[in-house]
Amino acid sequence: MTADEELCLRPATELAALVRDRAVSARELLEVHLARIERLDPRLNAIVTLDPDGARAAADAADAALAAGDPVGPLHGLPVAHKDTHLTAGMRTTWGSPVHADHVPLRDELVVERLRRAGAIRVGKTNTPEFAAGSHTFNTLFGVTHNPYRHGLSAGGSSGGAAAALAAGLVPVAEGSDMGGSLRNPAAFCGVVGLRPTPGRVPTWPTAMAWTQLSVQGPMGRTVADVALVLGAVAGPDPRVPISLEHEDAGPLGAGDLTGRRVAWAPDLGGRVSVDPAVRAALTPAVGVVERLGATVEEACPDLDGADDVFGTLRAWLFEATFGELCRRSPELVKEAIRWNAELGARLTGADLAFAEQEHTRLFERVVEFFERYDVLLAPTTQVLPFPVEQEYPTEIDGVEQTDYLQWMRSCTLISPTGCPALSVPAGLTPDGLPVGLQIIGPPRADRRVLEVGHAFEQARGPLPAPAL
Amino acid sequence: MTADEELCLRPATELAALVRDRAVSARELLEVHLARIERLDPRLNAIVTLDPDGARAAADAADAALAAGDPVGPLHGLPVAHKDTHLTAGMRTTWGSPVHADHVPLRDELVVERLRRAGAIRVGKTNTPEFAAGSHTFNTLFGVTHNPYRHGLSAGGSSGGAAAALAAGLVPVAEGSDMGGSLRNPAAFCGVVGLRPTPGRVPTWPTAMAWTQLSVQGPMGRTVADVALVLGAVAGPDPRVPISLEHEDAGPLGAGDLTGRRVAWAPDLGGRVSVDPAVRAALTPAVGVVERLGATVEEACPDLDGADDVFGTLRAWLFEATFGELCRRSPELVKEAIRWNAELGARLTGADLAFAEQEHTRLFERVVEFFERYDVLLAPTTQVLPFPVEQEYPTEIDGVEQTDYLQWMRSCTLISPTGCPALSVPAGLTPDGLPVGLQIIGPPRADRRVLEVGHAFEQARGPLPAPAL
Repeated sequence: MTADEELCLRPATELAALVRDRAVSARELLEVHLARIERLDPRLNAIVTLDPDGARAAADAADAALAAGDPVGPLHGLPVAHKDTHLTAGMRTTWGSPVHADHVPLRDELVVERLRRAGAIRVGKTNTPEFAAGSHTFNTLFGVTHNPYRHGLSAGGSSGGAAAALAAGLVPVAEGSDMGGSLRNPAAFCGVVGLRPTPGRVPTWPTAMAWTQLSVQGPMGRTVADVALVLGAVAGPDPRVPISLEHEDAGPLGAGDLTGRRVAWAPDLGGRVSVDPAVRAALTPAVGVVERLGATVEEACPDLDGADDVFGTLRAWLFEATFGELCRRSPELVKEAIRWNAELGARLTGADLAFAEQEHTRLFERVVEFFERYDVLLAPTTQVLPFPVEQEYPTEIDGVEQTDYLQWMRSCTLISPTGCPALSVPAGLTPDGLPVGLQIIGPPRADRRVLEVGHAFEQARGPLPAPAL
Repeated sequence: MTADEELCLRPATELAALVRDRAVSARELLEVHLARIERLDPRLNAIVTLDPDGARAAADAADAALAAGDPVGPLHGLPVAHKDTHLTAGMRTTWGSPVHADHVPLRDELVVERLRRAGAIRVGKTNTPEFAAGSHTFNTLFGVTHNPYRHGLSAGGSSGGAAAALAAGLVPVAEGSDMGGSLRNPAAFCGVVGLRPTPGRVPTWPTAMAWTQLSVQGPMGRTVADVALVLGAVAGPDPRVPISLEHEDAGPLGAGDLTGRRVAWAPDLGGRVSVDPAVRAALTPAVGVVERLGATVEEACPDLDGADDVFGTLRAWLFEATFGELCRRSPELVKEAIRWNAELGARLTGADLAFAEQEHTRLFERVVEFFERYDVLLAPTTQVLPFPVEQEYPTEIDGVEQTDYLQWMRSCTLISPTGCPALSVPAGLTPDGLPVGLQIIGPPRADRRVLEVGHAFEQARGPLPAPAL
């Protein structure tokens, strides 16, 4: 790594201050990132579309704005890469699907527009599984993304390109989306931070089904403070999004004392998921760190009965609504896992959906009641360590067979329908050097609280060794 | 009317001040209302369950709290009656259905609990059609509610007992719910004010399907300021309700100037509904009043394409989910209109619901875009005048046949799926002495704005003649 490239692993909060103070120009910051992308991305395959010239023009404009004394946004001059499922005006947006290989949108997705308005410099797009389906980032258009901590292992997914790019220092900030763990799982696999916000916190627009709460967009970063910085830029109401929430901005994250916090710890989500013993072993000391910060920690888990069915039903319904017609018209252009999921959806009746919504309501009520007794819930983000890229998904965990591409993700999918914000923070590395993520879950709308707890934990944990690249 | 009973037609805002200032005791206020109920309700049939002794005990406790200098809520000492579809702890709650003729809940509905905490004195329950289905208040348990302005005509519905009780001065404040106009239609028929708030503004709890937005609860009163007073007591987030919104309390409603307000006027919702010429004739001068207050008024209507289908599909789905099993098990205990509606719902597929949600999203986007050009939309609340109580529903409007019990309500049902707040304010009386309601619709979440415009209009309109009872 060159001295210049050393910049690329600094926190985004620091880089934003350097640019704002004109210690580093946006153009210089961009060039070191472009150099690093050129050097490292061929092996990682995290960034699938790159626009160096467009980024240079934007960085020069950002520097001109600073020179002119114009007001600037919180991400002014920070390079950003967008998930390739998010519309970028004038830049190819493929959803990782051959169907959209040449698709160039006319307008930005709201999350993209907000990052641009906050001053971020768009460098390109990050890899994702086909239509973001599944937590392993591979597709026929661009191939597979590798884990920065170990070439040949999965970066997770579906925001896998974003997580790998962050961990490798290719960009300081990124974003993604999460239906069944897509912001959390790749953060855990790649040793970075991902927040699945409360639905509506980061409004999704455009959207075909504006009231659904299963899939959300959210920020990723290398530190919790960086994630909070990005969240501040992308959260807040939009009149076109009926479920949108206010942004509860409350200034910088606190000093990190957790005295008096009531913490529940669910190492296997109340016996509901199988967990690789290596993951358990990495998480136990992390829970000890939380306890030493002054929190009271008890083993406890909300009653997640019905969460599997709610997630399965709503996901299948959304898949049929979104991909059903494509699957029937051009099955050869769609991977089997998506066709299977859409076919499940095609069999659903109105009564099935009503039953799922009733289960969903009961689940929500039980979870809200649980969080009257606990401030946050800790759990494994993933049940497994990063696995070989050649595998589509883990078929066995701790001796238990995983029957389809969603089973092994249940440590995340069980949480999605609760409506809770969930943050994945690196707990540390295994003795073998692979990252493990601690999932910090708060009651609905308590996004700020999970960031505070995550920040406190991260400060106490100390710096994570960077990947050797 | 006795001198004491004269109190019963004063605004709730005045009565609350009289009680707070100890000019009238809560017990005295209750007694004049009980006397008026005893005198007038036998012919109106607005209040179906009455608890004079419980109310007296609560009023005495309210007076004792004042005497002790305890802090009191905004509705302290005001008699209130609850819609008989809302749970009241220890008081019969029937939904107007023989199935629940003897049902006494153990707990309060959230809206009931909030009114109690705000100091209101529960006197009883107001009549509603069976399971609140339809906008005409009759059922086999309690019979039909009459219109205070003309015995023998409908009070509207489904919050028909509430509207009639308010108009007749039986209670100063009331509440109801609105899926397809149930707060607006009876307000229009009875010459009172009803607000369908933005979904989530008044959180509904308990609920079987927490994310649905079609049915909402809300306030009714004799003036817009009274409705704002009640809204302040029942609005605001509850952690158990995922869609709940903040309450945008901004103090007393303003002086009533509408200068600069951009108002759209849609006398037949863009050609979508038939309107009785007598209703049109009463609304034209009302629109003139809005114009004279300084607003610019243009004839315009948002594109409501799909609103019928969205409303019809979601309503049928909810009816099947809620009443389907009962209809199959005991069809003789359920009115035909509900069985028909639930049967429509039983035929729905997941794909039908996905299509409806997609239409719903497109409708929402077009409506939001419309309200970039207009501050509020004016429309008729009802397409007809109050009709004879013996009719189940109007079967013809201005020469156009109405084919089922929902058709004639479309001036309200077309608005429900837009997510917009909608206020019905009396426009005035027809030459024949029947009330007509002006519907004031704002963009989603602009509940405060529709109250402000309604208040300004009401001040300029002047007092509505009270019903001759």
